[in-house]
Parts: sequence; C-alpha cells; structure tokens
Amino acid sequence: MLISEIKIRVRYAETDKMGYCHHSVYAQYFEEGRTELMRDLGVSYLDMENQGIMLPVLELKTKYLKPAYYDDVLTIKTTLKEYPGVKIKFYYETFNQHGEKINFAETTLVFVKAKTMKPTKPPLFFLEKLTSLKK
Amino acid sequence: MLISEIKIRVRYAETDKMGYCHHSVYAQYFEEGRTELMRDLGVSYLDMENQGIMLPVLELKTKYLKPAYYDDVLTIKTTLKEYPGVKIKFYYETFNQHGEKINFAETTLVFVKAKTMKPTKPPLFFLEKLTSLKK
Amino acid sequence: MLISEIKIRVRYAETDKMGYCHHSVYAQYFEEGRTELMRDLGVSYLDMENQGIMLPVLELKTKYLKPAYYDDVLTIKTTLKEYPGVKIKFYYETFNQHGEKINFAETTLVFVKAKTMKPTKPPLFFLEKLTSLKK
Amino acid sequence: MLISEIKIRVRYAETDKMGYCHHSVYAQYFEEGRTELMRDLGVSYLDMENQGIMLPVLELKTKYLKPAYYDDVLTIKTTLKEYPGVKIKFYYETFNQHGEKINFAETTLVFVKAKTMKPTKPPLFFLEKLTSLKK
Repeated sequence: MLISEIKIRVRYAETDKMGYCHHSVYAQYFEEGRTELMRDLGVSYLDMENQGIMLPVLELKTKYLKPAYYDDVLTIKTTLKEYPGVKIKFYYETFNQHGEKINFAETTLVFVKAKTMKPTKPPLFFLEKLTSLKK
Repeated sequence: MLISEIKIRVRYAETDKMGYCHHSVYAQYFEEGRTELMRDLGVSYLDMENQGIMLPVLELKTKYLKPAYYDDVLTIKTTLKEYPGVKIKFYYETFNQHGEKINFAETTLVFVKAKTMKPTKPPLFFLEKLTSLKK
Repeated sequence: MLISEIKIRVRYAETDKMGYCHHSVYAQYFEEGRTELMRDLGVSYLDMENQGIMLPVLELKTKYLKPAYYDDVLTIKTTLKEYPGVKIKFYYETFNQHGEKINFAETTLVFVKAKTMKPTKPPLFFLEKLTSLKK
Repeated sequence: MLISEIKIRVRYAETDKMGYCHHSVYAQYFEEGRTELMRDLGVSYLDMENQGIMLPVLELKTKYLKPAYYDDVLTIKTTLKEYPGVKIKFYYETFNQHGEKINFAETTLVFVKAKTMKPTKPPLFFLEKLTSLKK
C-alpha cells in the first residue's frame, strides 16, 4: 500500500456562485494526487507518456461530504492499495485545513499504448519500483 | 420518467494533450444536461436559486467508454427516473455525432435552503410540474 | 470584412463566488467565436490542424465593461478586418441577452507548421475562401 | 515597487490537444500571482472580500512568447509598480523551469463595494501596508 499527499489551494476561478469549489474541479485535484504518488514512487507520468504509455480514466466515483471554499488549502491523500494489472485503481480523500474530510473518491485507469490505444501491462520500471517498495 | 437532450460541442480548451476531451469536463456537461431537463419541465434552476433553494452535488459516478475529441458535437441525454425527495438523482448518457455512447453517469444532489444550508423538500412548483406530467 | 456570431450560455461551473462569469472564461468563448467565423467561411479549424497547420495565440487583450451571470445567453460577435499574413487578428464583442455590450477583445494568432512549429503563410484554401468573398 | 513570486505546476487538465498549457489558463495563474503578492504584503484577499470589498478585473493584456507544457513548474512574478487609487494595476511575467520568460501580462482591477458594486478607494489597511513598506 502506497500513500501520497499533495496540498492544493482552491483558486478563485474554481469557485462557483454558491461560493463552493465547483464539484467538477476535484477530478483535476485527484489527477494531481495520483501524479504526485507516482512521483513519490520515482516514476514521472510525463516520462511514461513520452515512452508511449498513456493512462486514460475508465471510471470516477466521488462522494462529497462538505464543500471547500476559496483560498482553502486542501490536502489530497492518494492511496494505491492493489498491485496494478492492465488497470490501476487509486483512492482519494480530500481534507481541508481544519482536518475535516470533505470528500472521497476512486478512479480506475487503464494502461494503453499511445500508438495503438490498446490496453497493455504496466511498464516494467513502474512494477519494479512497486516491487522494490515491498522489500 | 423524464428525458431531456442537449447538444454540446467540445471546445479546444477542453481537450488535453492526449487529444481527448478531459474527463473532468463531463461533470460540467452533465450539469448543463440536468439544467436543460429542468428547463424542459418549465423550471428554471436560476429562479430556484433566486428563491433560496440550492442543489449541491452529493455524489457523482461516471464510466468512460470512449473519448470525445475537439469539435465533436455531443448529445447529453439526461433522465429523471424517480420522484425526488430531499435528494434527487439524475442519470446521463453521452453520445457522439456518430451515435456511439461514449460514457454514462449518475449524480445525486440534495435540495438545501441557501440561508441555512440545511436539506429541505423540493419546492412545490417543482413537484407540481412533475405531477402535472403524469397526468 | 467578415463577421460571425455565436451564442453561448454561461455555465454554472464558469461562475465564481462573486456570481460573475469568471474573466478567464471569455478566452474560451472567443476561441469558439473565431472557430465559428472560420466555419461560416467554409474552413474547419479541425481540418486545418489535421493538415498540419496550427494557430497558437500570440496576444490577447480584453476590456471588461460589465459582468455576465449564470444562465445568461451571450452573443460573441467575431470580426476579421484585415487580410491575414503569417499572423491573423480577430476582434470580438460580447453582448448579453439584453443587448448590452459587456466586453470586447482582440487576439493575434500565428499560422505555424505543426511539424516544425515555424511560422508559415495561411493555407491556400483559407486564402481562396477569403478571396472568393470579395467578389 | 512590490514584487512577489509564486510557483505553479501545469496540470494535465490545463493542456490542450496542441500539448500546450491552454492560453486561457494563465488568467487564473495571474490571479494566484496577485493574491500571493497581497498575502506577502500581509493582506488576505479573502478577508478583504469578507469585509465587503471586491476586485473585479477591468482589463487583461497578455503577450505569449513561448508555450508551457504539462508538468512544467512555472514561476509567476507579479509586480505592483504604482500606488493604487480606485483602480489597481498588476504586471506579470511567467518563467518556466529553464528560466525562460514565456509570457507577460498586465491587469487593471477596480475596488468596488460588494453591496453597491460601486467603485471605491482601496481599504485603509491595504494602503497602510503599502505605506509602511516605503519606510
């Protein structure tokens, strides 16, 4: 199990007329969260794409508990619980600066070869990083 | 059961470096979809907010089947299946201009009073519109 | 001189906590405006990109006169005043549903070859469409 | 003269099919830039809004020199050159992680009272912070 945290400040442009951080924005925050988890692991998502492997999203589920507001400093906690196959699943929890959990989510993504857009196994260097963690 | 359709063209700014309409954008399209359904019903979401009732999102689930691309003209088909209580659930299907279903989703929202942010029953004029449909 | 109009409804997600359509959003509306102008002319921006010509933005100037609000139906009026060279300039005016001009803007873009990212003359088919208009 | 810097990493969702950080996104970065400058000065923009003063944007001019790409870590350098009146002007320069200046911009904003939306002088505590700097 691998856990990573990233802090993101809610931008003015991300709020809506209700004064909330618009619910569509969190999908961007979660994307930052999983990129950070990979970075923590020593894997650059950018490098992976440059090597011809992409990770489109297959599924997104989010439960919203409380809103976030302008200028809130949120912590996105991203967790990789299961060893990935062709698909990889990330779990997210968002906390505000008062330590309150304001939402949680999960995403399923699939490794694809950029050239063919066909599903593929995770790249070896990614699996090796994961395996080396276990030891 | 109430069904509504709206057409939305994918903007350049909504694409990402994969060339896809970014997966976070659909939450905005679905919001347009349910607003259109309410408009079809004769209810303006804006009027409802002006009368002190808001509809924050509690839950969002999306399954992505295929990507959409720049300049695609998508049809968002929004369905209201169940009579709403304090919560209201909408279902969505997105089709591209070739008639292919590219994703489907559901959202749960809650009626709240703007002043107190406490859950409340749907406004009468909304329920009356729904009831008049049945006849 | 070529003029084109497109109608865009302000999305909930595009508003901010002030209740305004966030000022950054108009750059997306203007992009839709100039794409529509090209479409009116018989030129698809998508086709042009597929043929290896891209049009990145070099300069954007916007003056905001009044805000737009959620659910407003805006008209973006895009004008091409000068015959394009390597650079092309578009002018924009935004009107709300009450006919009030709420902002105006201009953008300068440059034709580049996608392969080299070097500036290039506008594609012949684009110039031919413009020339045929004059007659 | 007051200068402030903030670092922002380009998100995947902010890129477009050209692979560039979409040109509309920088208006959000500049907003973060001027908020940071105010924070450096000891003024919270959020507090100011809570006290009934808002700062809508009147004018935005941006010149784009080079694109930014996904995962780039940009530095937004924001400068306040002139003592503000009812209007306040900020200047911005964006640098990528290689130290290259990739764009520059200026925005003019106006202090307004939230209740009346009428222009007003900058709040005293803001001017006092500026004056204390000079000494």
